[in-house]
Amino acid sequence: MADAVPVAKRTGAHCIAIVELAKWLEGQGVEEVSDPNFGGTVEFDWGYVSLVPAWHTNTLPGSEESPFSAEHGIAIGPAAGLLIKIGETTVYHAGDTALFGDMELIARRSDVDVALLPIGGHYTMDRRDAVVAAEFVGAATVIPMHYDTFPAIEADPGAFKEEVESKTSSKVVVLSPGESHSL
Amino acid sequence: MADAVPVAKRTGAHCIAIVELAKWLEGQGVEEVSDPNFGGTVEFDWGYVSLVPAWHTNTLPGSEESPFSAEHGIAIGPAAGLLIKIGETTVYHAGDTALFGDMELIARRSDVDVALLPIGGHYTMDRRDAVVAAEFVGAATVIPMHYDTFPAIEADPGAFKEEVESKTSSKVVVLSPGESHSL
Amino acid sequence: MADAVPVAKRTGAHCIAIVELAKWLEGQGVEEVSDPNFGGTVEFDWGYVSLVPAWHTNTLPGSEESPFSAEHGIAIGPAAGLLIKIGETTVYHAGDTALFGDMELIARRSDVDVALLPIGGHYTMDRRDAVVAAEFVGAATVIPMHYDTFPAIEADPGAFKEEVESKTSSKVVVLSPGESHSL
Repeated sequence: MADAVPVAKRTGAHCIAIVELAKWLEGQGVEEVSDPNFGGTVEFDWGYVSLVPAWHTNTLPGSEESPFSAEHGIAIGPAAGLLIKIGETTVYHAGDTALFGDMELIARRSDVDVALLPIGGHYTMDRRDAVVAAEFVGAATVIPMHYDTFPAIEADPGAFKEEVESKTSSKVVVLSPGESHSL
Repeated sequence: MADAVPVAKRTGAHCIAIVELAKWLEGQGVEEVSDPNFGGTVEFDWGYVSLVPAWHTNTLPGSEESPFSAEHGIAIGPAAGLLIKIGETTVYHAGDTALFGDMELIARRSDVDVALLPIGGHYTMDRRDAVVAAEFVGAATVIPMHYDTFPAIEADPGAFKEEVESKTSSKVVVLSPGESHSL
Repeated sequence: MADAVPVAKRTGAHCIAIVELAKWLEGQGVEEVSDPNFGGTVEFDWGYVSLVPAWHTNTLPGSEESPFSAEHGIAIGPAAGLLIKIGETTVYHAGDTALFGDMELIARRSDVDVALLPIGGHYTMDRRDAVVAAEFVGAATVIPMHYDTFPAIEADPGAFKEEVESKTSSKVVVLSPGESHSL
């Protein structure tokens, strides 16, 4: 979140965040900000972005040595996932989250083409719970994320791919840092 | 919430709120306060009030220009819905919330006669998700709320009524500001 | 939580808590701390501990007269339950929580041998909702907790035992303060 402010200012990007965070971004001088809450949708000429539930804490890091301490950070409450419609394609970015049953409801309400699911464990679900998430979501394409960037969240994306593809009709695309994938 | 304090003081109303908010109300000098958490019930001679889950943030507004900023407001965590039993009638006031699957569980645990459901979108579910909520709850009467008071939450209650009544056996009662409805 | 710091220091216990709380414990001088978020697992040679969702607020008490006031305490966001594997035995400590449907998912992902369920009401589900929780979890052994320590959470553990044992194949073990039970 600390990086979001300079990126938004440099690029002029429109930021969408849950209301408490959106208002903080405005206070930091970000100019284009939308402030939904869970269940809300922000529409654009290219599609829309909706905020959906996630099971994760949501804390604005403090400037101290221990940014996520309850004392130094600013806790906002529950975190959000994102449902992003771009043209004809619906992307479910689960955010940082544990597995939860309403992933099925999210996918029932919006046909998900691409699901980005965390597999790293520790701060999110691990790759085994993420297989169940992939079953719940039923996306054509699943992209694992939030793993291997530091030791606590090491994961085996190949094993995840194998298990998802053996249990569902989803195809798993494992990306290297910086790599892109076209649908 | 800022209005709750003078209203409670003027009327002597008994306030029920999640514990962090209840303790804040007491600190503001409100005299009759109950402080449950999710799943808790406060009983009265006329019935009871239970706190049920909702997917929404819950922030005490700050006194600054940007009351709901993470920095200026005081975030409490997840928000609550209410289940209110008055005599023989059970009212589910969903609060501000996104659609979630446990609305079905709430209605399974307590036969809901009247459901107040937000339909405005942006800060809550929109009228399309609220149709699914109405299906989950199965109340005899559904009253849409939390819409049309400012542009971000404009909604079409007539379309909501038509869709709910075509898909469920619930009857939708659309109220104008200040209007009342007797069961 | 105030007690956790001296206990951890005296015993050298390894503390596991959601990240904001874990970082606070570290700041208080606790030496062995793990900091998962929902869905995360911390492994030991004797088993593991996972953080699972719960419906409850999570506030670090303030030092003032009203420790859980939104102003005096430090709210972190949603609270967690625990899944604890010790050798061959899986314990689900539901934490303080309302009843929620994903208790079924938690139990589907990990066969639960022992479930500790709150029954006191007011700050958690009451004994009637806890019967449904016991149905969702399907543990061989259910131990009621979080009741009778102060008037607001008085409950009848015998009635809970009778109802769970008539509706499920779980055996309910009611413990007195200080009493232990071996599996």
